[in-house]
Amino acid sequence: MATIAPRSGTAFLLKKGQRLKVIDPKGEQVADLVAYNADDTGEVISSGRSLDYASKLFLTTGDPIYSNRSNVMLRIAEDTVGRHDFLLTPCSKDTFRIIYGDEHPHQGCFGNLAEALAPFGICPDQIPVAFNCFMNVVIDPSGGLKVEPPLSKAGDHIVFEAEMDLFIGLTACSALQSNNYSFKPIDFEIFSRS
Amino acid sequence: MATIAPRSGTAFLLKKGQRLKVIDPKGEQVADLVAYNADDTGEVISSGRSLDYASKLFLTTGDPIYSNRSNVMLRIAEDTVGRHDFLLTPCSKDTFRIIYGDEHPHQGCFGNLAEALAPFGICPDQIPVAFNCFMNVVIDPSGGLKVEPPLSKAGDHIVFEAEMDLFIGLTACSALQSNNYSFKPIDFEIFSRS
Repeated sequence: MATIAPRSGTAFLLKKGQRLKVIDPKGEQVADLVAYNADDTGEVISSGRSLDYASKLFLTTGDPIYSNRSNVMLRIAEDTVGRHDFLLTPCSKDTFRIIYGDEHPHQGCFGNLAEALAPFGICPDQIPVAFNCFMNVVIDPSGGLKVEPPLSKAGDHIVFEAEMDLFIGLTACSALQSNNYSFKPIDFEIFSRS
Repeated sequence: MATIAPRSGTAFLLKKGQRLKVIDPKGEQVADLVAYNADDTGEVISSGRSLDYASKLFLTTGDPIYSNRSNVMLRIAEDTVGRHDFLLTPCSKDTFRIIYGDEHPHQGCFGNLAEALAPFGICPDQIPVAFNCFMNVVIDPSGGLKVEPPLSKAGDHIVFEAEMDLFIGLTACSALQSNNYSFKPIDFEIFSRS
């Protein structure tokens, strides 16, 4: 088990068939996840393909996460929460400037992912809409979006199985709204299906 | 005025300050739009940034379309419909294979955009979630997505103003569901604000 400190991020290889368990150890904490084909990092998770093929916004156990080339990269193997976001990009300096009006903005998940993914040859422009584990975006009937506290409680988790060798970027999200105004860590574990 | 034939696409330069009018000449026809910074095609429209900063799903008159670098690329200057999609990727061979079960699938908007954008040095992996003019995606309270006929009637249009020099890709969409099961053309016009 590894821990991602509050407002930070990491990146690692997840091999085909391995499982990644993302755990919210304290509750109400979002983790942004991105994934790239380890053999060709031009292939990346795609919200647009995944939501289109699933014909729904909220992916959960059994649902595949497709790439921009329409290949399945990950499949959700287990999910104790059932509410995640796949609409919004990782928070960034610009998010904090535009949405929060910060004068000296934190680099956010975007900056944390960019740093963590650089050693794998992935540049900032390649960071897509993330699969935001535990993020609770509520949509009103007119299409208004509101970021509400995650539904995850301490110990809740989501497990992904890799369907190809992947470079994964993963954060403990840095945005106040997403985490009920308290920055907490994220735990994760890699294991092989027994 | 130019016409995009049914199930085809085109690409062109739109200079800063110029306006692009996308017209649905017959009604109920979707047009997928993508845009790249003409000086650096690594910068591209971003659904995730645009929806996050607007805090809503349905963009219309006055709303900006942001890039993956959080710069405003386009602004919606006029909109006679008020319902467009910014969730889904352009239809593709894979869309027709996965959603429609076609054995010999059409290349779709994705293939049409890839062909039209190639002369500008843009490769297929760079095609993002498109701004799908007139596309009417209805979301039920549980997050289910349904593609319904566009609300656009003959002559309805949307006008974008460029906030930087852009390469634009534009299609007359090739997917049955999006166009109420009839493939029609799309008209467009480029002009300078008088």
